[in-house]
Amino acid sequence: MIYNIEELSIEIERNITRINWGKQPEELYKPIEYILGSAGKRIRPLLTLMACNMFSDNIENAISPAIGIEMFHNFTLLHDDLMDDAPVRRGNETVHLKWNANTAILSGDAMMVEAYRFICESPNQYLKSILAIFNETALGVCEGQMLDMQFENRNNVSEDEYIEMIRLKTSVLIAASLQIGAIIGGASESNAKLLYDFGINLGLAFQLLDDWLDTFSNPEVFGKRTGGDIVENKKTFLLINALKLADNKQKTELQSWIAKTNFNEEEKINAIKSIYEKLKIGEIALLKAEEFSVKAFDCLNKIDVPESRKKLLLELGKNLLKRDK
Amino acid sequence: MIYNIEELSIEIERNITRINWGKQPEELYKPIEYILGSAGKRIRPLLTLMACNMFSDNIENAISPAIGIEMFHNFTLLHDDLMDDAPVRRGNETVHLKWNANTAILSGDAMMVEAYRFICESPNQYLKSILAIFNETALGVCEGQMLDMQFENRNNVSEDEYIEMIRLKTSVLIAASLQIGAIIGGASESNAKLLYDFGINLGLAFQLLDDWLDTFSNPEVFGKRTGGDIVENKKTFLLINALKLADNKQKTELQSWIAKTNFNEEEKINAIKSIYEKLKIGEIALLKAEEFSVKAFDCLNKIDVPESRKKLLLELGKNLLKRDK
Repeated sequence: MIYNIEELSIEIERNITRINWGKQPEELYKPIEYILGSAGKRIRPLLTLMACNMFSDNIENAISPAIGIEMFHNFTLLHDDLMDDAPVRRGNETVHLKWNANTAILSGDAMMVEAYRFICESPNQYLKSILAIFNETALGVCEGQMLDMQFENRNNVSEDEYIEMIRLKTSVLIAASLQIGAIIGGASESNAKLLYDFGINLGLAFQLLDDWLDTFSNPEVFGKRTGGDIVENKKTFLLINALKLADNKQKTELQSWIAKTNFNEEEKINAIKSIYEKLKIGEIALLKAEEFSVKAFDCLNKIDVPESRKKLLLELGKNLLKRDK
Repeated sequence: MIYNIEELSIEIERNITRINWGKQPEELYKPIEYILGSAGKRIRPLLTLMACNMFSDNIENAISPAIGIEMFHNFTLLHDDLMDDAPVRRGNETVHLKWNANTAILSGDAMMVEAYRFICESPNQYLKSILAIFNETALGVCEGQMLDMQFENRNNVSEDEYIEMIRLKTSVLIAASLQIGAIIGGASESNAKLLYDFGINLGLAFQLLDDWLDTFSNPEVFGKRTGGDIVENKKTFLLINALKLADNKQKTELQSWIAKTNFNEEEKINAIKSIYEKLKIGEIALLKAEEFSVKAFDCLNKIDVPESRKKLLLELGKNLLKRDK
């Protein structure tokens, strides 16, 4: 059968809530339960189950690896929030604030092991290749986070470097979620690779759109205030391109805003947005996102299964790339 | 053939030095190379290879898992040093001081993934069971570190709780190193289990002896100054038993030293040592260590292989438990 998204979501939540976190010591496991329970969108495990369902009616074998991938994703959020000293995650206080930094480090470590425990429940015949993909992906995510932290202290990040960073930090895990699901579903190597490439390009398009939304979306629709990236001088696709395309006067103005430690946020957002608008940075970002999006759906298109089996991934992909959100 | 300890050590160092750490970004991988290169005693990978060699002439298949275990052990040191804010490890500045806390977190994370990469090179037929042991062990080590941190803020730690903490923090990884080696060497389940139990008891004896050495050894022979645990109020086997056996006057004296924030270190060490001596705490600790040591060698004794194949582990075990070091 082909599952619909509600059925898959229920399956994921059911399996997450039935994990037994009654283990001791409580202070090690409570933070894991806490962050995993704070309802995320569960995109990655959904992708794993959809990819499996694309090639097989039986998704049972993909559930544990899907949970493992969600566990790993949440582990990265836990440690990233500590490294970035972020106060809030999904509306809740972050683990290092609710508990403390050491608990965040150690519960994160245990969470990575838990992720491997679930991944290790993959069917025997695929275990070795799934672990190889997962290991490679996990290292890539660490590399991406390191690049992201390094970019904070650099003013000369190129567009290519930025794309490589978001490929590692965001795309490879999305791609691996799909590839692992496909493998468990019995996909051919080439079909699994096409899904991987779909994931890479979808992830890149998604991140670029996210950069755009943070600055240009309607806050009432987007659900969070816009301009956060501008206030924090985040080296987004927008800022990198603005610094590249600006004339001398605009560059000076951009750099003076970046250097200011004392400023009115609204004023800074408006000033930089106005430069972005003059340079058509928003359009450039959307064009680039569209480019990756076309590549993504082109990969999906090439996969050798009936169209009916692609429908769900196509919908989810399109939904992720919707601008009016 | 039966290898000797020098041959096994050379094999381990050769395989560690040939790891290619030329990967990018450098700041992620340099700390891993740094801590793994700071010559530890390589006890755990030695145990893996010895355990394999006990049952098989071919140790080739055990080398990658042995390196993976050493990698994991060094990952725990890296994160533990950050959590304890320790300044020095094996005579070198710790990673979070040489680089920074975020690098220590992230390089540690990558190091755990690297550990899994090596573990995953275990022979296919044993992969699933070795991963199950490794996952369980890795979680145990996290649990042990959490208990250790919690004990710092408690004055009522019981002897049983302490033994359980060091079992998790120290023994399970030693035991798993042996069990994994045995499995790869083709040991029967019961022989592999006996080696695991040998490791648990060896680890406990070793840690209790380490507690004793920190207070009672000759610093010129031990190689580090004694009394460090006393100065830091570490809840060691010695302090726990002293608090249990002390009369009211001694208890008051112990607690007053524990509460002092301003004191002469020499004076505190001498005062507490003198209470330990009156209560024969040193003897109690050595007796307990001896008890675990007897259990350990009893397990080794029961293993169903020719004595010649046990010789090396017997020697290493005895060496680890030597008091005049």
